[in-house]
Amino acid sequence: GSRPVILCAIHSGTKIDHFGFLEDGTFKQRYLVNNEHWDQKGGPILFYTGNEGDITWFCNNTGFMWDVAEDLGAMLVFAEHRYYGESLPFGQDSYSDTKHLNYLTSEQALADFSVLIRELKRKVLGAQESPVIAIGGSYGGMLSAWLRMKYPNVVVGALAASAPIWQFPDMVPCGDFYKIVTQDFARSGLNCDSNIRRSWKAIDNITATDDGLQWLSGEFSLCSPLKKTDLDDFKAWLQETWVNLAMVDYPYEANFLQPLPRWPIQVVCKHLNFDPSSVSDYQLLGGISEAARVYYNYTGNCPCLNTSSTATGNLGFIGWYYQACTEMVMPLCTDGVQDMFEPQDWNFQAFSDECNSLFGVRPRADWAATVYGGLDIASHSNIIFSNGGLDPWSSGGVTRNISDSVVAIVIPDGAHHLDLRYNNEYDPHTVLSARIQEVEYFKLWITQARKLQIPG
Amino acid sequence: GSRPVILCAIHSGTKIDHFGFLEDGTFKQRYLVNNEHWDQKGGPILFYTGNEGDITWFCNNTGFMWDVAEDLGAMLVFAEHRYYGESLPFGQDSYSDTKHLNYLTSEQALADFSVLIRELKRKVLGAQESPVIAIGGSYGGMLSAWLRMKYPNVVVGALAASAPIWQFPDMVPCGDFYKIVTQDFARSGLNCDSNIRRSWKAIDNITATDDGLQWLSGEFSLCSPLKKTDLDDFKAWLQETWVNLAMVDYPYEANFLQPLPRWPIQVVCKHLNFDPSSVSDYQLLGGISEAARVYYNYTGNCPCLNTSSTATGNLGFIGWYYQACTEMVMPLCTDGVQDMFEPQDWNFQAFSDECNSLFGVRPRADWAATVYGGLDIASHSNIIFSNGGLDPWSSGGVTRNISDSVVAIVIPDGAHHLDLRYNNEYDPHTVLSARIQEVEYFKLWITQARKLQIPG
Repeated sequence: GSRPVILCAIHSGTKIDHFGFLEDGTFKQRYLVNNEHWDQKGGPILFYTGNEGDITWFCNNTGFMWDVAEDLGAMLVFAEHRYYGESLPFGQDSYSDTKHLNYLTSEQALADFSVLIRELKRKVLGAQESPVIAIGGSYGGMLSAWLRMKYPNVVVGALAASAPIWQFPDMVPCGDFYKIVTQDFARSGLNCDSNIRRSWKAIDNITATDDGLQWLSGEFSLCSPLKKTDLDDFKAWLQETWVNLAMVDYPYEANFLQPLPRWPIQVVCKHLNFDPSSVSDYQLLGGISEAARVYYNYTGNCPCLNTSSTATGNLGFIGWYYQACTEMVMPLCTDGVQDMFEPQDWNFQAFSDECNSLFGVRPRADWAATVYGGLDIASHSNIIFSNGGLDPWSSGGVTRNISDSVVAIVIPDGAHHLDLRYNNEYDPHTVLSARIQEVEYFKLWITQARKLQIPG
Repeated sequence: GSRPVILCAIHSGTKIDHFGFLEDGTFKQRYLVNNEHWDQKGGPILFYTGNEGDITWFCNNTGFMWDVAEDLGAMLVFAEHRYYGESLPFGQDSYSDTKHLNYLTSEQALADFSVLIRELKRKVLGAQESPVIAIGGSYGGMLSAWLRMKYPNVVVGALAASAPIWQFPDMVPCGDFYKIVTQDFARSGLNCDSNIRRSWKAIDNITATDDGLQWLSGEFSLCSPLKKTDLDDFKAWLQETWVNLAMVDYPYEANFLQPLPRWPIQVVCKHLNFDPSSVSDYQLLGGISEAARVYYNYTGNCPCLNTSSTATGNLGFIGWYYQACTEMVMPLCTDGVQDMFEPQDWNFQAFSDECNSLFGVRPRADWAATVYGGLDIASHSNIIFSNGGLDPWSSGGVTRNISDSVVAIVIPDGAHHLDLRYNNEYDPHTVLSARIQEVEYFKLWITQARKLQIPG
């Protein structure tokens, strides 16, 4: 088809602080609109609750909304999250210090979305009675669910795709996340997880000598040669590489975090099918380097590997790290037995100290449970939680029905919010059926909302 | 019976700012506890969400909770609202400037209550599974309803007594409030409202001369004699006197805003039953002064009337004015036709300018509707809105059932949250029946909550 028409718009009246009156300034929030299929007589609005990155990138990676717009007669709106992309409350200074970062919270973002939606309904001719449905993936999915929980007057329902709203202290075991990553590799090739589990010791063995360090740097084509003191970072970079592969293990070629082949973990595992009883450390790490290159150099354009970055530049890593250091405290841990990583406990104190030295803030471990309800969300309504069985973030997701109207959809062979992507000929039938169910719920919510409207 | 045992406690870890991480300080929040009737095996907690004043005063004026504690096996908790009574985030400096006042918002107060409730459930032996019911009157009732709306994980239900959650811009007509005040006087004595309606012009007539001013000051036994420039304040003081009488028109002697006889408006109106066709301005204002004295000097201990104050010192007027100047924007107006007051439009700009000059803040007229749902509260559950037909604040209250579990109870001959007071031999049967219904809902919510608990 023809290229979709996106109107890039600015809401210039957004308050920097919704929860206090000392700071009365406003900033420019960016949002994208498409109304080519919108039924101007009160047709619904599908509202993407932007997450930690540039909104155009989420817009391009949320094909589902574009696929269903015509059937629903829906307007599409993609709202950028404050402090990301171009929606910077203090412009260039937004990240300059703790003071300027102080308004980067999920509560402020939800208030931004609510104010924007009410504004659109007031100002767009024909939208006064439009039911609004929140849609988001990952942190954006958490925001969608929370928007419905906190502002049910503003959105009639929410699709929270791959939203780990329970990945907070004392809600789910901290080890589940890496267990799922490990399972993805175990099912994608013979000995694949075992060889990764053995690789950490092999790295220690080989890098015990300077020659080994040099060999490893060459084998990985690293942009800067490894030093002894880089080893923890190098391992963390590899670990994050396997995590990212688990998140984007899609059934077709895609470019979300990186350009990748279809079922990328299967491709990775072709380089890691050694017999563990006979493989040497050099052979093993050679395989690991080939595997890493699948992720970092599928296009073949990458002359060397840079261990300081693992994914797309569209994500706002510093902002997200600040959010993790304040509200979004998500414990993860490994034991090396049920997962293929080196054992590492969740150490809140160390994390808190790091946050304090980086940003001058301390995380509040219990706040998310207080403000967003924790496991106790049964009194809410009209929320779909969809999760992919391959997605490590499903560890903190809602994967069972909570009530008639707070429901779970599980896509066993789906990775991170596969359901939010464009339809594709390689889609497994489970994701097609998930999308059909999602649209059915949308139609139900729209009908409910129209019935509740007082005739005027 | 014997004097109830009240434990005065302090929660010392309350964050000054729940919604930002720059200000990481804490303050001491006061709360009162009674557990003489509490069933320590998970008995319910009735939690009073304190409003704009000293919590001991609300505790003493919420006899309903004491009356029902034994039947429910309930613990009673009365939590003080930040910035009132002894719960001052910055001690003596809390009101010193806009900066220190910045954390005086309803959202912060709701977060305080949620944190406190979770803390109590964690720390009090036997309270882990206790269902918590929020109870409050007036602004405290708004907080109860909002606590259930925003934190349904923390409280299983709410009794919002005389809570004008709709007294915000574009929700209800601004004139209804004073219409109800007028109706209370009209029904309480012959010509009572007409004579008050005529009194404003009589004040103008008489105070046109210096002799008249002096006469009026003497007639009212004013502590400081009236000057020409005081007339607007004098009229405002009288107007507030009639409003307060309407709020506390209780069927028995009581001391809420002031010590008063039973059905005080009937007593007031005995002084205002002149024939409007023949009464002189002097006679009329003589009656008005007698009427005012019913309110200000029922005990006979008051040597002169002070026009700078209309009610108990237990309320925090400056704090409430700051809240009105920020979030709690409640339009009121009069037309002199449907009410007995001088016509006065609602003038948002003038109000905003006054707020700016007083506190350096601007009110946000639309925020309450955004954050608390406005008229659209049907998706919530387990909230009772009770309202008295005599209470002017019922103009902004929820007086019809919204759903099966968001329900209204109207007490036709009740004034401001009469249902929250101790049982009294003079109580009309409508308030007795309201209290019985309220307790039945409490029991239903408690049963629901126990069913939802996972055994183990």
